[in-house]
Amino acid sequence: MTEKADWIAVDWGTSNLRAWLIAADGSIIRQVGSDKGMGALAPDQFEPTLLEIVAPFLGDNQTKVICCGMVGAKQGWQEAAYATVPCTPAHPQTAIHVQADPRLDVHILAGVCQDSPADVMRGEETQIAGFLAENPDFDGVLCLPGTHTKWAQVSAGEIVSFRTFMTGEMFALLSKNSVLRHSVSTDDWNDIEFENAVTDTIGSPQMVAARLFGLRAETLLRDLPNAHAKARLSGMLIGLELAGCKPYWLGQRIAIIGAPGLSALYAAGLRTQGVSAELADGEKMTLAGLTAAYNQMIGQS
Amino acid sequence: MTEKADWIAVDWGTSNLRAWLIAADGSIIRQVGSDKGMGALAPDQFEPTLLEIVAPFLGDNQTKVICCGMVGAKQGWQEAAYATVPCTPAHPQTAIHVQADPRLDVHILAGVCQDSPADVMRGEETQIAGFLAENPDFDGVLCLPGTHTKWAQVSAGEIVSFRTFMTGEMFALLSKNSVLRHSVSTDDWNDIEFENAVTDTIGSPQMVAARLFGLRAETLLRDLPNAHAKARLSGMLIGLELAGCKPYWLGQRIAIIGAPGLSALYAAGLRTQGVSAELADGEKMTLAGLTAAYNQMIGQS
Repeated sequence: MTEKADWIAVDWGTSNLRAWLIAADGSIIRQVGSDKGMGALAPDQFEPTLLEIVAPFLGDNQTKVICCGMVGAKQGWQEAAYATVPCTPAHPQTAIHVQADPRLDVHILAGVCQDSPADVMRGEETQIAGFLAENPDFDGVLCLPGTHTKWAQVSAGEIVSFRTFMTGEMFALLSKNSVLRHSVSTDDWNDIEFENAVTDTIGSPQMVAARLFGLRAETLLRDLPNAHAKARLSGMLIGLELAGCKPYWLGQRIAIIGAPGLSALYAAGLRTQGVSAELADGEKMTLAGLTAAYNQMIGQS
Repeated sequence: MTEKADWIAVDWGTSNLRAWLIAADGSIIRQVGSDKGMGALAPDQFEPTLLEIVAPFLGDNQTKVICCGMVGAKQGWQEAAYATVPCTPAHPQTAIHVQADPRLDVHILAGVCQDSPADVMRGEETQIAGFLAENPDFDGVLCLPGTHTKWAQVSAGEIVSFRTFMTGEMFALLSKNSVLRHSVSTDDWNDIEFENAVTDTIGSPQMVAARLFGLRAETLLRDLPNAHAKARLSGMLIGLELAGCKPYWLGQRIAIIGAPGLSALYAAGLRTQGVSAELADGEKMTLAGLTAAYNQMIGQS
């Protein structure tokens, strides 16, 4: 017989969905997932999509479901307004309650926005809340690398300010859809080229559009190895970001929250500037943040 | 009866082909075109593609065909090696002769390359040659905006150095394939937003990846009009380029060679920095450059 879940944690992004079935003792019964992300669903398709993967774990009592991510966007299941900085991230008081199947008690955590400069996040605030639950005294800067990398200044348990960089999306577009795709199609890599590109781009960020075309030219004129071109492309874009967010990382305590491979690249980029960073796994921080919100919601913290 | 061409000028790029049928007195009999660019053709398909559109204009004598552009790339009709800077652009001595139908005497003009920093052009050198044919005493900098914008330092009839910026391709990718496509899909425009974005980005080019995401955030939080977002996106990318090529335009005589709309944007960008530029039509300069090469080839100049 399938063990019943005490509550369910859900990270529902644009392109996929992850759910953790949590037992009464806090242990994970099962992690399940689906590629039915927010981008592929109409508002009335969220509930059946969720039920499809969690129904076997539902008991006789109503089960709490805590969600974060793009599920709360305007085009999502139901819009969860943004909390405005400075604010406590992923606080259950800012969550919305979604009318759903009587077996479910669904809550979607609010994203976070900033007035000036205008900025938004949905999902990363829950990772930040998870990190703060595990590191309650953290005062410094969090970097959350991804398609749209976030840098957040955190103090006294609140997000004070943050800034988003389109680095990951630019890397994907340039490496898959631009003339550079012929130069960078490889699974290989070169650390030295990456580090030099980070350093060069921090030194002269205004040259990035010319250096990008330089990859194409070196491929044509000098048979630049694809692994070098790919590492250099990544280094240029991460370097451009590090140049832009220098006020965030300079002289601060830094932690990087994300997928291990990408986080390691950001750590290597920061190391070229003599800056070291702590690392935290993004998926673990998401679950920790959803758990912290659940515990606050039921009055256990 | 169709008038026969004395010679044929061909601009054969990646995505299309333009040919001018020229009479013995130098007048244009007809301009013809096709969307069969280099990117869509195998090496043995160039000759039939050309014949299809020019055959009606061929007389009894063999007709000279002078080509420029990606037709001379490795994946083109036949590879025309690059001339290396400093060099006279589009000089017929660097052209290659292509074996073809006996009615045709086909020549492809060489592109231009640079060793350090590595860079290449194919097609723009012919526009530069056309501009120099019409302005033989020009000493200064030429800007050739496009998918891959070129800046070339020209002196004593030679290209001394040049640099390519991926600005146009980045604009196309970001406006059509990124999350910003929702923010910028419009045919409208706003000059002030464009100019402010150019100025801001020249002032702090390292912020460009954050400012890009800012367009998305302002769309979500403040209903930023699409015309504003599109003009700002263009201004950011042109501003990033102008920041990078400042050593090219600062204190120099400048001419912009290109399509009128895009050239006007570059001119407006430069004006924000107090720099004025002459304008020359890109298509006319291509024909002028092919004509100059033809005249040199037959010993008329």
